[in-house]
Amino acid sequence: MLRRRRIWQCNEPPAAARERSPPRAAGFFPMKIAAPKETLPGERRVALVPGSCKKLIQAGMEVHMESGAGSEAFFTDAEYRDAGAQPIPDAGAVLGAGDLILKVQPPTRSEIERMREGAMLLATLMPLRNLDAVRALADRRITAFSTDAIPRITRAQAMDTLSAMANISGYKSVLIAAAELPKYFPMFMTAAGTVFAARVFVIGAGVAGLQAIATAKRLGANVVATDVRPEVKEQIESVGAKYVGVPLREATSSAGG
Amino acid sequence: MLRRRRIWQCNEPPAAARERSPPRAAGFFPMKIAAPKETLPGERRVALVPGSCKKLIQAGMEVHMESGAGSEAFFTDAEYRDAGAQPIPDAGAVLGAGDLILKVQPPTRSEIERMREGAMLLATLMPLRNLDAVRALADRRITAFSTDAIPRITRAQAMDTLSAMANISGYKSVLIAAAELPKYFPMFMTAAGTVFAARVFVIGAGVAGLQAIATAKRLGANVVATDVRPEVKEQIESVGAKYVGVPLREATSSAGG
Repeated sequence: MLRRRRIWQCNEPPAAARERSPPRAAGFFPMKIAAPKETLPGERRVALVPGSCKKLIQAGMEVHMESGAGSEAFFTDAEYRDAGAQPIPDAGAVLGAGDLILKVQPPTRSEIERMREGAMLLATLMPLRNLDAVRALADRRITAFSTDAIPRITRAQAMDTLSAMANISGYKSVLIAAAELPKYFPMFMTAAGTVFAARVFVIGAGVAGLQAIATAKRLGANVVATDVRPEVKEQIESVGAKYVGVPLREATSSAGG
Repeated sequence: MLRRRRIWQCNEPPAAARERSPPRAAGFFPMKIAAPKETLPGERRVALVPGSCKKLIQAGMEVHMESGAGSEAFFTDAEYRDAGAQPIPDAGAVLGAGDLILKVQPPTRSEIERMREGAMLLATLMPLRNLDAVRALADRRITAFSTDAIPRITRAQAMDTLSAMANISGYKSVLIAAAELPKYFPMFMTAAGTVFAARVFVIGAGVAGLQAIATAKRLGANVVATDVRPEVKEQIESVGAKYVGVPLREATSSAGG
């Protein structure tokens, strides 16, 4: 029953939704999930992809997408329509409709004002950096879940957005470095001469750093890496880099990394 | 003696050069090698790098570089000065001084006009595409060597610029593709889900194509390739791609590729 309560809510559903939805227990109505288009300049991500959209609708939920929400992330409105959501152009209407609002970036003040009082929000909220947003959410009695604050334990791994994002940063940073470097990453031996492999130095061997090491190594570079936590030496070596120690006066390890 | 003649010429050398130059046979004067800055928009290469500059000067030649000739290729005037060349700002003076002019791109009409009659030119001339340049060179009795027309035989491999350039094209094209693709090249298996490896299709398996295959494969992509020459199947497979045949009516193999 507890699991059920996370999906069904007691709001009056629109007649159309009632007809579309799968059979349900009497008195429960589908939760409305809303995903607006991100407004931060340069932000290209979308909180809900068509694939997940489809799964949520199949599980009996209603999905409200803003038109063009996925356009920068290569997902068209047509794909969302195929998944069963009906993209609507009005951001205010999307935000106002949601029982649960999905976002990538923390919401702005005007976004919070357009959310329904008592709704829920799931976003990369980074609460310690966005105290204004946290206060505004509290004022409107919105329960917020911050994906970056989910503990990095085994049970929660499937909810972890931090390491997925760090993975991309590590991968992309090496692609950019390889494209900008005025030489090759791999060694080339040709009849006209030999080009030695590039030397890459990665500082910090968390998720991003390890991915950067692995990608540079894949491209054939000679990789050296370091970290303030001496115990990651083995991880650094396992992805193909040489570890360079940094003498430290204090231990700096944490549960994160 | 024949080998000697390729280096020494019978022009009167300037007094300064005479003092600087290593001991030489009486009656022979150092050949003047000139490398101007490339003028084609977007061209960042330079025909002579400081390392080669040094070797030529040590072999008794005089080198005339244009100021800033290597700036786009990450070589400073100071590096050329250290190598023994004295960069001069006037392109006309550089072109006019050379017994042998080194260029990357075919010379323009105005460049040819500023060269000394009877001089020599070494460039990626592509004579069949640049008939005007070839005619202008012939008019001024300039002997031109076209690096792209050097036969691709074992003895000439050290003079081969085509495959070195094609190598870079193949490598860089994959880096650009990887940076632009809205997903990873390698497969990722994480607790939050699996991202499958990108599928890359390379058309043409010459030097550029084979390098593109190798680079995409290094990055972890699933690579498929084809070529109009069915006999390169083995080369395609040797760098890690799957070969896809194309049914052809005529054989298209050549000594190039």
